Amino acid sequence: MAGEAKISVEELAKHNSESNLWAAINGDIWDLTAFAPTHPGGLEIILEYAGQDASRAYNEVHGPSLAAKSLSSEALKGKLDESTVTEEWKSKQVSNQEHTSHPDEKPDLGSILNTHDFEAAAQKALSAKTWAFQSGAANDNLTHYANLSFYQRIFFRPRVMVGVANPSTSTKIFGREFSVPFFSSPAALAKLAHPDGELAMYRACHDRGTTIIGCNNASFSFSEMRSAVEDQDYPLFYQLYVNKDRQASEKLIKEVSNLRPVAIIVTADLPVVGKREADERVQLDSGYKAAKHMAVQTVSGDKKGSGLARSTGSFIDPALNWDDVAWLKSLTDAPIFIKGIQSAADARKALEHGCSGIYISNHGGRAADTAQPSILTLLEIQANCPEVLEQLEVFIDGGVRRGSDILKAICLGASAVCLGRPFLYAVGYGEDGVGHLIDILKDELETAMQQVGIKSLSEAHPGLLNTTELDKYVYRGDSHPYARKIVRRQSKL
Amino acid sequence: MAGEAKISVEELAKHNSESNLWAAINGDIWDLTAFAPTHPGGLEIILEYAGQDASRAYNEVHGPSLAAKSLSSEALKGKLDESTVTEEWKSKQVSNQEHTSHPDEKPDLGSILNTHDFEAAAQKALSAKTWAFQSGAANDNLTHYANLSFYQRIFFRPRVMVGVANPSTSTKIFGREFSVPFFSSPAALAKLAHPDGELAMYRACHDRGTTIIGCNNASFSFSEMRSAVEDQDYPLFYQLYVNKDRQASEKLIKEVSNLRPVAIIVTADLPVVGKREADERVQLDSGYKAAKHMAVQTVSGDKKGSGLARSTGSFIDPALNWDDVAWLKSLTDAPIFIKGIQSAADARKALEHGCSGIYISNHGGRAADTAQPSILTLLEIQANCPEVLEQLEVFIDGGVRRGSDILKAICLGASAVCLGRPFLYAVGYGEDGVGHLIDILKDELETAMQQVGIKSLSEAHPGLLNTTELDKYVYRGDSHPYARKIVRRQSKL
Amino acid sequence: MAGEAKISVEELAKHNSESNLWAAINGDIWDLTAFAPTHPGGLEIILEYAGQDASRAYNEVHGPSLAAKSLSSEALKGKLDESTVTEEWKSKQVSNQEHTSHPDEKPDLGSILNTHDFEAAAQKALSAKTWAFQSGAANDNLTHYANLSFYQRIFFRPRVMVGVANPSTSTKIFGREFSVPFFSSPAALAKLAHPDGELAMYRACHDRGTTIIGCNNASFSFSEMRSAVEDQDYPLFYQLYVNKDRQASEKLIKEVSNLRPVAIIVTADLPVVGKREADERVQLDSGYKAAKHMAVQTVSGDKKGSGLARSTGSFIDPALNWDDVAWLKSLTDAPIFIKGIQSAADARKALEHGCSGIYISNHGGRAADTAQPSILTLLEIQANCPEVLEQLEVFIDGGVRRGSDILKAICLGASAVCLGRPFLYAVGYGEDGVGHLIDILKDELETAMQQVGIKSLSEAHPGLLNTTELDKYVYRGDSHPYARKIVRRQSKL
Amino acid sequence: MAGEAKISVEELAKHNSESNLWAAINGDIWDLTAFAPTHPGGLEIILEYAGQDASRAYNEVHGPSLAAKSLSSEALKGKLDESTVTEEWKSKQVSNQEHTSHPDEKPDLGSILNTHDFEAAAQKALSAKTWAFQSGAANDNLTHYANLSFYQRIFFRPRVMVGVANPSTSTKIFGREFSVPFFSSPAALAKLAHPDGELAMYRACHDRGTTIIGCNNASFSFSEMRSAVEDQDYPLFYQLYVNKDRQASEKLIKEVSNLRPVAIIVTADLPVVGKREADERVQLDSGYKAAKHMAVQTVSGDKKGSGLARSTGSFIDPALNWDDVAWLKSLTDAPIFIKGIQSAADARKALEHGCSGIYISNHGGRAADTAQPSILTLLEIQANCPEVLEQLEVFIDGGVRRGSDILKAICLGASAVCLGRPFLYAVGYGEDGVGHLIDILKDELETAMQQVGIKSLSEAHPGLLNTTELDKYVYRGDSHPYARKIVRRQSKL
Repeated sequence: MAGEAKISVEELAKHNSESNLWAAINGDIWDLTAFAPTHPGGLEIILEYAGQDASRAYNEVHGPSLAAKSLSSEALKGKLDESTVTEEWKSKQVSNQEHTSHPDEKPDLGSILNTHDFEAAAQKALSAKTWAFQSGAANDNLTHYANLSFYQRIFFRPRVMVGVANPSTSTKIFGREFSVPFFSSPAALAKLAHPDGELAMYRACHDRGTTIIGCNNASFSFSEMRSAVEDQDYPLFYQLYVNKDRQASEKLIKEVSNLRPVAIIVTADLPVVGKREADERVQLDSGYKAAKHMAVQTVSGDKKGSGLARSTGSFIDPALNWDDVAWLKSLTDAPIFIKGIQSAADARKALEHGCSGIYISNHGGRAADTAQPSILTLLEIQANCPEVLEQLEVFIDGGVRRGSDILKAICLGASAVCLGRPFLYAVGYGEDGVGHLIDILKDELETAMQQVGIKSLSEAHPGLLNTTELDKYVYRGDSHPYARKIVRRQSKL
Repeated sequence: MAGEAKISVEELAKHNSESNLWAAINGDIWDLTAFAPTHPGGLEIILEYAGQDASRAYNEVHGPSLAAKSLSSEALKGKLDESTVTEEWKSKQVSNQEHTSHPDEKPDLGSILNTHDFEAAAQKALSAKTWAFQSGAANDNLTHYANLSFYQRIFFRPRVMVGVANPSTSTKIFGREFSVPFFSSPAALAKLAHPDGELAMYRACHDRGTTIIGCNNASFSFSEMRSAVEDQDYPLFYQLYVNKDRQASEKLIKEVSNLRPVAIIVTADLPVVGKREADERVQLDSGYKAAKHMAVQTVSGDKKGSGLARSTGSFIDPALNWDDVAWLKSLTDAPIFIKGIQSAADARKALEHGCSGIYISNHGGRAADTAQPSILTLLEIQANCPEVLEQLEVFIDGGVRRGSDILKAICLGASAVCLGRPFLYAVGYGEDGVGHLIDILKDELETAMQQVGIKSLSEAHPGLLNTTELDKYVYRGDSHPYARKIVRRQSKL
Repeated sequence: MAGEAKISVEELAKHNSESNLWAAINGDIWDLTAFAPTHPGGLEIILEYAGQDASRAYNEVHGPSLAAKSLSSEALKGKLDESTVTEEWKSKQVSNQEHTSHPDEKPDLGSILNTHDFEAAAQKALSAKTWAFQSGAANDNLTHYANLSFYQRIFFRPRVMVGVANPSTSTKIFGREFSVPFFSSPAALAKLAHPDGELAMYRACHDRGTTIIGCNNASFSFSEMRSAVEDQDYPLFYQLYVNKDRQASEKLIKEVSNLRPVAIIVTADLPVVGKREADERVQLDSGYKAAKHMAVQTVSGDKKGSGLARSTGSFIDPALNWDDVAWLKSLTDAPIFIKGIQSAADARKALEHGCSGIYISNHGGRAADTAQPSILTLLEIQANCPEVLEQLEVFIDGGVRRGSDILKAICLGASAVCLGRPFLYAVGYGEDGVGHLIDILKDELETAMQQVGIKSLSEAHPGLLNTTELDKYVYRGDSHPYARKIVRRQSKL
Repeated sequence: MAGEAKISVEELAKHNSESNLWAAINGDIWDLTAFAPTHPGGLEIILEYAGQDASRAYNEVHGPSLAAKSLSSEALKGKLDESTVTEEWKSKQVSNQEHTSHPDEKPDLGSILNTHDFEAAAQKALSAKTWAFQSGAANDNLTHYANLSFYQRIFFRPRVMVGVANPSTSTKIFGREFSVPFFSSPAALAKLAHPDGELAMYRACHDRGTTIIGCNNASFSFSEMRSAVEDQDYPLFYQLYVNKDRQASEKLIKEVSNLRPVAIIVTADLPVVGKREADERVQLDSGYKAAKHMAVQTVSGDKKGSGLARSTGSFIDPALNWDDVAWLKSLTDAPIFIKGIQSAADARKALEHGCSGIYISNHGGRAADTAQPSILTLLEIQANCPEVLEQLEVFIDGGVRRGSDILKAICLGASAVCLGRPFLYAVGYGEDGVGHLIDILKDELETAMQQVGIKSLSEAHPGLLNTTELDKYVYRGDSHPYARKIVRRQSKL
């Protein structure tokens, strides 16, 4: 079998073009010529490793089983002949010249008191490339910052003298109990921060009685996540990007459904990937041999940039629409959420189309820059269609950094709150880091609950808040003074 | 009697564990094994001095009589044998290695023109630990900063040509006359700033015709404060934390009542101590031999942190509720205030439960971070239940830094205004410092009164202010647009 | 005659105490023992020069004729015997050790493009003491900054296509024509900036067709100002502080009236001088031999500080009230303005009491800090008593730095606009500087008029502005939601 | 013919005064004595080159044919005798001592990701003089900054699940199709940034399917622009300043009309040029031999400053008014736009006077400083006269820096959006730079459209936005609370 053949580094080096493209991955030599154009992460990134050892770059973002699962067996050309490997050859491999992370510069986990500390630690420890990909948002980052600041602009109105001994932060979603009302947002490529990636996240959440939302673009497959803890019925969510190749999505949904997710959360706010300039800039600045040249080519081509974010999102189907909900429901028994709801109108649509939940999100400010902050959308839903809050599960993410932020969202009608970047930054410390993050947030939430005068999340209500500063920014639907005034001149468009 | 025995430093050093815990305090050797787990300031801090001389740490925060009062006489094991004390032994005692304050770096008192100058002087002179404890607030300090800025966002509308010669700043509370309408807030552990602590504060206030609110967690007992000036009938307030051990509270209330406080002010806004990160961080960073190790242990344990604030608040009863007002009233003839009112609803509750006063406070931003600023709560009470302002005495603290701030609160219906941090910073200069602070604030208040056109506090009224910038942030009770909209889905919680 | 006697520096030095207090002023030796306690600028400042040569300090703030005018002829003890003057003696005189100004550091007048440039030039060139006195405002300077920023928060809504060739900036006040609708505010002690002080200001204004408002605390007397230009009927305003010694005020008003001021403007917003901390701080920091010691003494005394502002304001009568308008009118035929109007209610009062004009001012932020900005008071008057704008002349100062600011105030109903600090900063360049300032402002005003679409100030109206950002801050009189809610508990005050 | 005579540098140097003023331009010697006083750019700038070689300064701002076109043939005195040219003479010519640009400091075009990068590149590469002229705005730049920030204060409310594959950014104006709804604003003197100036802009726009608005003050004449691309019918707009010399304008309009502009856009917001202080300051600071002296003279004269902006605008007719629309329409068949509309009232006027379009603009903040931001004027028109949006083409510029800004303006009713500074900064890279800019903005626009859920600009509507933050700043016409209250006192004006 060809897969067993020994292949020298000299032979490998000959297959170094788009039309003849081999690469070594963890000792196997693969012919990627046919696959590269369909790579979810884009052709360009594979081209960089043509004729070379791509192991390090591959392992940074993918679990070990992915190559074998994604590629046909004929593509396996053989094994790298280790006897031909020299120090000189190693030093010339592109992936060994990349910007490296600085894990030693992380402060002790015990000194981390809050999510801000986790962020500062990540900025120190991650490579420039990973930091740009994880921390960056779209264009001018205005939505990202607004997500954060709008929580801070809600005041508490604590009630006192109500007896708050022994509070409980637990909640139920679809009848499943969780120790806390917050989960890890679906987040791509956690291996960039730590080799155990999503597996470490899930294990730490499981240990503390909460869970993650497994991401379609995770470093590990959903079945790998499912297997990371012993209890195969432990609640676990799955997030899906609908693929331009709908058959691929059907196959994936069926596979995932067999693994019994609590719900399948379909992302709708990324019909195209936003323009993440930090991400694109670091690609341009990076030390990759070929990068600068290629980036310019790309820019001159379709102008979509070549950042990691845009590359990994190229398979997402922009044609996704409400009629597809019926199709999705036909493929699975799992409840369906729509993620990326940013208006009361779409919250209503989700209810009308038989979804089980909505997930309010602007993709952490990584989709449409200047999209309104998430918590404002929640207020808009309250003002315009409170029935959605009664009839559907409502998740929300974007800007949550404190237990008090979590409590505010719950008071305003959310079922659960998700955090993306904080979990990615925490997983830099592996499973312990994620556990520490959950402990901090749970303590902050519990403290905030007692301080405002409640012992159970079921006692949370809007009256514990003073939202006057945000109320004036809430879109009031048809009462919007300009909503119906524009009648376009025929000749205009 | 055992208490008279001479005990060598070698013998002392043997009793250095949680189960066998001795310490020297001002020449006495105490067995603290039984007491340490019930220490209001927490077990950990005592453990650090196990088998050592704890005098310095003790004296930093406690008056000399407290140990004898709090401990059983059997716990007194004897006297420290001074002949066994060596320089080497001294240098090894933990308490001699602590971060030290820098009293020499204080500017001359004569150069202090306002409370900001006092704050800057304190930051220079205090040890990092004390500065963190006194200046810090909860989480992101957002309420602390809002307390300050919201006063600055109220404009005066001075009236002119009204004749303002010979103004008077005096006021009456429960028939007692005060030269000024401001007092020292109840504030813990003033000895951290100056050996005379609360005694110096009270003496300076007494000299100027005002007073302090003695704190349950003060460095000196209420009877020590009472004795600090000759006139045993001089008005003095007392602030109480209700203890988880209700019998201890009953005993305390009766003792205090015998000392005739003008009122007993029950703190309700600290059912649990807030997360004071500056305080926790300085503990982590401190040079204590054991601190870092212990902090990490604590964090891995209950995640409540080990800052001075959280430690000293662990005895507070989170079960305190409105029904307890009747119990409190049964124990004393003194009028009862509830401190920590943060909503019109609770102001009404205090009125309904027969309290004599309310004290609007968010604990200086040290309880629930993002709790609304105090002055906004006063406006909320005006808008929703002005009868409270007619029928109860209303104190307020949080963010008051100028005589003009004091005048604004009085114009809006407060009976008196309290200041916490400014008095703590001033007491770093001892009694003279506190006197200087009162003189400055009185001058500023008097000047502001004349400038807005009044000669007496009874002429103060809201029309002297332009509160338009804050009015839009006032919570309007049941007219809140979202107050009743949330009906939770059954499956949710 | 004693005044002719030669007195040696040794003799002079002997009279160096409060009870025996001589000083040399421009070669004359005066006995100031009787006068010093009644000195408008305070006793302390004179005490510093006891037994010394006070010429420099005197000349910095006073015109040459003032001493002879204010002191009895018996107080003149003789002439300084120049033959006894030595270099050593000179170097020891307090006034020669003062902080000095740096006139050489001023940029060329031709490079000054706007009032900001004048301010920067003044900060470089003035002594620390003068800069603090002129630039400083009260307490935290919040009103000073709000005065400035509130003009910037008004938008223009320019009208186009209206033909704006040959615009005119001229206006009439009481039938007198002025080339521009702006004057120099009454401002104390212009000699601190330039030896010609108010004389230079008046001459430059006269040359350009505008005028000044002569200040009661000016470096030159009103008659000296009147004589500074040839035309003794040229329009000139006079500003008055009513003296605690009402007879002194009567005498002064009669003298001034003989010099035919266009109007007498009575300052009402300084019943007590505000707390100008920059001013007080520089006194404390100054190199004066005695200053530090004395300041501390003062602070320990009445806490009013010893800044130049507080000292020079000590003669002002805080008992001034509306009934005094009749008294003022009985003393002069000149129209009476009340300066310092800060509410619609007081604007109405001025109308009712038969005043001819009001002058909206918060004393440049130097009186009550956090008093509302001047332009907001003008909007308040419009909203609550527009009849005042029809029936009285309305002057306004505070925060005007651009020709566009002037136009905004005119659009909102002001008759004329005054500027204080900009004229003081400009006079550092003498008459040329003031002329340059007027030219700049006139050009800016004219340009702004054309840009918004008017050719004459009579065409100005509020519709040229978008004041929406300020409208929400306008106090709405009796419709204020809290205006009548406070009913004080009897026991409170 | 005199024009052929050889003239030595010595001879040239003799004609160096206002009354005898020769200069060499690209080898020709011109007698400019008669022309200089009528020079649109002002007399002063020509005087600097009297008796010298003005080629470099001329070429910086003018196309080569302009001199011959503007000057009478008798003014051509001959050719510069190159044999008399020495290095020493060259080094003495004023134009060779000017501040130079630094084109080498520009980053690679491929690294430019957005308009901010273009701005940073321009700041590095341009001479101080050009940077000041292009980047500067009027007075304190407040309108310039508000233009930018007000776009950022509009939130998107993206709609999801609507199928957004294959979006189109194309639009039609007067039946002409454009690939994108944005054009280059009319902008003066593009040669300052690049020798090809407007020609490069037009070519790049033409290549991408969009166009420019040729400026009356362009470096190239309209016919030169028209000839820059092959297709003589390609859509091209023309912008006109009406000249004080109306006959000159008539001639120009007829010439331009023969070149078939899509529309003629008449600028109305610059009856006088604004005070552009950066521009004036750089003139004062420049190394020109004569500049400083002259500037001071100018300042002492009419105080209008001598910046490039004011100089080049001196020919504009301030008497332009609505009645002139009929005159303009009589001169051309091209549709007429009024540019500089800043109020709903004037939008209505344009409709009433038979204009075909309006162009909302505050001249990029270069006219009246603190004029309201452009996007606010668009909202004002919506609120007060939405019929204008139905019946006229509506262009808008000011503060547009992102594709998302363009989309917001379209949602609110604009037909097209124009950008000034970004095109000027991009043309520093020549035609490639402008092409790159268009590609970036088109990509951003397309991405934003998909993200908010539309595939065609005809689907844009206000409901995709949350404009609550701006709605409160919208002037509401006659409902303005102060609009009719001012009745001026007769004696006032």
